[in-house]
Amino acid sequence: MRALHQRLNIVGLGVADVAAATDFYRRLGWSPSSVSNPHITFFQSGGAIVSLFGRRALMDEAGLDDAAGHGSAGATLACNMASKEEVDATLAEAAAAGGRISAPAVDRDWGGYSGYFTDLDGHAWEIAWNPYFEIAPDGTVTLPA
Amino acid sequence: MRALHQRLNIVGLGVADVAAATDFYRRLGWSPSSVSNPHITFFQSGGAIVSLFGRRALMDEAGLDDAAGHGSAGATLACNMASKEEVDATLAEAAAAGGRISAPAVDRDWGGYSGYFTDLDGHAWEIAWNPYFEIAPDGTVTLPA
Repeated sequence: MRALHQRLNIVGLGVADVAAATDFYRRLGWSPSSVSNPHITFFQSGGAIVSLFGRRALMDEAGLDDAAGHGSAGATLACNMASKEEVDATLAEAAAAGGRISAPAVDRDWGGYSGYFTDLDGHAWEIAWNPYFEIAPDGTVTLPA
Repeated sequence: MRALHQRLNIVGLGVADVAAATDFYRRLGWSPSSVSNPHITFFQSGGAIVSLFGRRALMDEAGLDDAAGHGSAGATLACNMASKEEVDATLAEAAAAGGRISAPAVDRDWGGYSGYFTDLDGHAWEIAWNPYFEIAPDGTVTLPA
């Protein structure tokens, strides 16, 4: 099996103030998706998605130490899976490949299921099943406008 | 004009050892693009691209302080433009929107032209013209296999 689909669905940027960060990207001409809420902003960004999420919450969820100063102290990468079972299998394979499970997969308040591993340099990948995000045959996730 | 195209073309991950990091992603089942070289590895990752690049070189190029510990100390986001003029215009608009130019645009050794700005939380965007990367009408860049 292939452990991790070779695709990046979402880059999550940890921010101090979601509203202020969203306004900045609006000034750059970006439009949030309608699936955004006060806690998280989603932007369709070509074939990938950029999200803005509270840094403290992001680091807690990912099991990362904000003080560590590595790349993942501020951003995470995400790959969306088709099922909870695929999330578990992918995390197991990532660990077998030398990754570190920083946050085991759990049911999330938002209705999905996800866990995190970090690569050799501490970059964090969230492996997620999100029942609200449809994955196209080519692996991309497209948000409503 | 819109300042920054609403798209993410590349996520550049700063790594301690490009070969070791590449091997890790190979163990996950990923295949590098043929445009990779010993200094940088490119992976087509769905509609976006993930690259692995020496962290020190990445931070120097982006004008970022590795000790700062913010997100950009380990990763950068990139948006590819169709011309040098578009790079300059986008960086100017980003600065006008409240971004900080961390590295003014310059001709790069690899044959392109790029500069960097950081958003309100220090996440770094490289605005790049790369004569070797074709941008499709939908804004995506697709690498050779």
